[in-house]
Amino acid sequence: MPEPVDPAAWSCPLPLRDHDRVMIGHGGGGRLSAELITHLFLPAFGVEPSAVLHDAATVDLGGQRLAFSTDSYVVRPLFFPGGSIGELAVYGTVNDVAMAGAQPIALSTGFILEEGLPLDVLGRVATELGKAAQRAGVRLATGDTKVVDAGMADGMYINTAGIGLIPEGVDIRPTRATPGDRVIVSGSIGLHGIAVMSQREGLEFGTQVRSDCAPLAALVSVMLDACRDLHVLRDPTRGGLAASMCEIAESGAVGIEYDEAAVPVPSEVAAACSILGLDAISVANEGKLVAIVPDRSVDAVMAAMTAHPDGRDAVVIGDVTADHPGVVVARTAFGARRILDLPLGEQLPRIC
Amino acid sequence: MPEPVDPAAWSCPLPLRDHDRVMIGHGGGGRLSAELITHLFLPAFGVEPSAVLHDAATVDLGGQRLAFSTDSYVVRPLFFPGGSIGELAVYGTVNDVAMAGAQPIALSTGFILEEGLPLDVLGRVATELGKAAQRAGVRLATGDTKVVDAGMADGMYINTAGIGLIPEGVDIRPTRATPGDRVIVSGSIGLHGIAVMSQREGLEFGTQVRSDCAPLAALVSVMLDACRDLHVLRDPTRGGLAASMCEIAESGAVGIEYDEAAVPVPSEVAAACSILGLDAISVANEGKLVAIVPDRSVDAVMAAMTAHPDGRDAVVIGDVTADHPGVVVARTAFGARRILDLPLGEQLPRIC
Repeated sequence: MPEPVDPAAWSCPLPLRDHDRVMIGHGGGGRLSAELITHLFLPAFGVEPSAVLHDAATVDLGGQRLAFSTDSYVVRPLFFPGGSIGELAVYGTVNDVAMAGAQPIALSTGFILEEGLPLDVLGRVATELGKAAQRAGVRLATGDTKVVDAGMADGMYINTAGIGLIPEGVDIRPTRATPGDRVIVSGSIGLHGIAVMSQREGLEFGTQVRSDCAPLAALVSVMLDACRDLHVLRDPTRGGLAASMCEIAESGAVGIEYDEAAVPVPSEVAAACSILGLDAISVANEGKLVAIVPDRSVDAVMAAMTAHPDGRDAVVIGDVTADHPGVVVARTAFGARRILDLPLGEQLPRIC
Repeated sequence: MPEPVDPAAWSCPLPLRDHDRVMIGHGGGGRLSAELITHLFLPAFGVEPSAVLHDAATVDLGGQRLAFSTDSYVVRPLFFPGGSIGELAVYGTVNDVAMAGAQPIALSTGFILEEGLPLDVLGRVATELGKAAQRAGVRLATGDTKVVDAGMADGMYINTAGIGLIPEGVDIRPTRATPGDRVIVSGSIGLHGIAVMSQREGLEFGTQVRSDCAPLAALVSVMLDACRDLHVLRDPTRGGLAASMCEIAESGAVGIEYDEAAVPVPSEVAAACSILGLDAISVANEGKLVAIVPDRSVDAVMAAMTAHPDGRDAVVIGDVTADHPGVVVARTAFGARRILDLPLGEQLPRIC
């Protein structure tokens, strides 16, 4: 007679994370990425963990504070409904700078091109990148181009790094989330991830889902006018809103509770997610932000956001709590509660 | 009877540069790279040509001047005698910042990793990168990691962007080369390019050639102490000393004349070049600089350089002249003169 099954005693003989090689998930912005940073890069670099928890680093510069951030873009395909790698390379990085409360000033662009890439394709991407920089009000200050052998680099990879000045009195960082704060999302989520995915896999969902990629610094600016004391800003890219909230809860050692029904998920994203077996809250965005705002300022911030074209669909989705520090809890429509876990890797790899 | 051959009337029916696809040479830092920038990137970005002629851009930031530069590193192999892609990724970028006279402050690192790369290899590169940052006195402020499919990215590509403050009164840029100025090289050339090439191709030249990759900001600092009015600094990486001098002559609309015999070419580099059919003056370096210095200050600058470990082999190799603007002329040991042309691409691709 077989022994009774005791799931609590199960252990995996080959834990997923006990690996000696780079896996796709290491680049997904989830728990594997975090482990790579904590266990490999930080010890190798001799850098304090606190320095890397934010979208952008703060650099002191002769009495001023500079926000400094970088991202590489390896999105497949290069063009998707609503955008291209060119827009992403601008908005992805200037948005990280904006998440420190800074207005982006200058951007560097590093192109890694595949030998044989049609110059026409490069020209289209560069034109979109140039237009996006204009829209974001950021100067393309410096650049570099490398060419690698045919068969490498999927056409092209782009890296950008951005800098901006943090206004005096602004102190936005993940560790400032405080019990009693409110959680705001600036608009509908999941559009970017689903747009790229559907293009890549040739999926059609009736209505076409278009990426929402857009610059966020103008929205941040009106939010700061309404409340200089914003506590945390984050743009939920890889790993989506789920990863952003989990990281905020973890770095601030606070709990977050949110209403699942309050999260603005467009019907076409919900439909695509249910076909693909994805959770919209973990799907990447590139024109949305999540803000942790002191309760006393939430009305002023919401008024400023909903009056701005980039934040007109903003909603309060939840609260920061002293309970269950480090853990994000979803309140479902049926009154149940479930724990939201930081994704291990990325539901949709190569999304940015 | 065939017509007499008249080479002067020859023209190429398919000029090398009349192409519609990216070629390896577009990433080589030579004339093809310059054409790509001028004819594709600048019009697409809507950026003034003058903005991109320097190793680093200058960004005004609330009354201060910031030097800002980026480079992607796609070197093959990842490790070579005297260094690795880790050191290159630091020194290559901080040296570009230093060429504006700035002391580098912060660096961003963007890793693009190939799925399946042994974490051990990544760990070694990250450790070397961390050590190099310490040696260069620059903070690794912010980073990003992406993973691409197996078979891409040659193990890894790294992009770094660096920022530094330009001291007051310092105005170093290619257009400041003035007839009468002297041309200084900080030490022996060609070591980095030959070291990478020999490792990649499995060549042996009796004595092992080691890359000279090293940070240059400390040397620049003592040079500025000796002469605040340095006109131009350039680190002769891709395209070597030849490309640097041609670009300075072109952007300053001045001529440059130099003594071929004065250029410090180590015997092992000369030997390797003669076997490989290369010209040492076009081979990449990564720990050397070329300086255009007012004649009245040349003794002070040379004294400061030769007293510093990174510049002890510095030599004056030539002069800036009002003759033949835009053209660099080599004076050979036999009293002849020859025009030095900007290389079309790169003698040794994928060198940084």
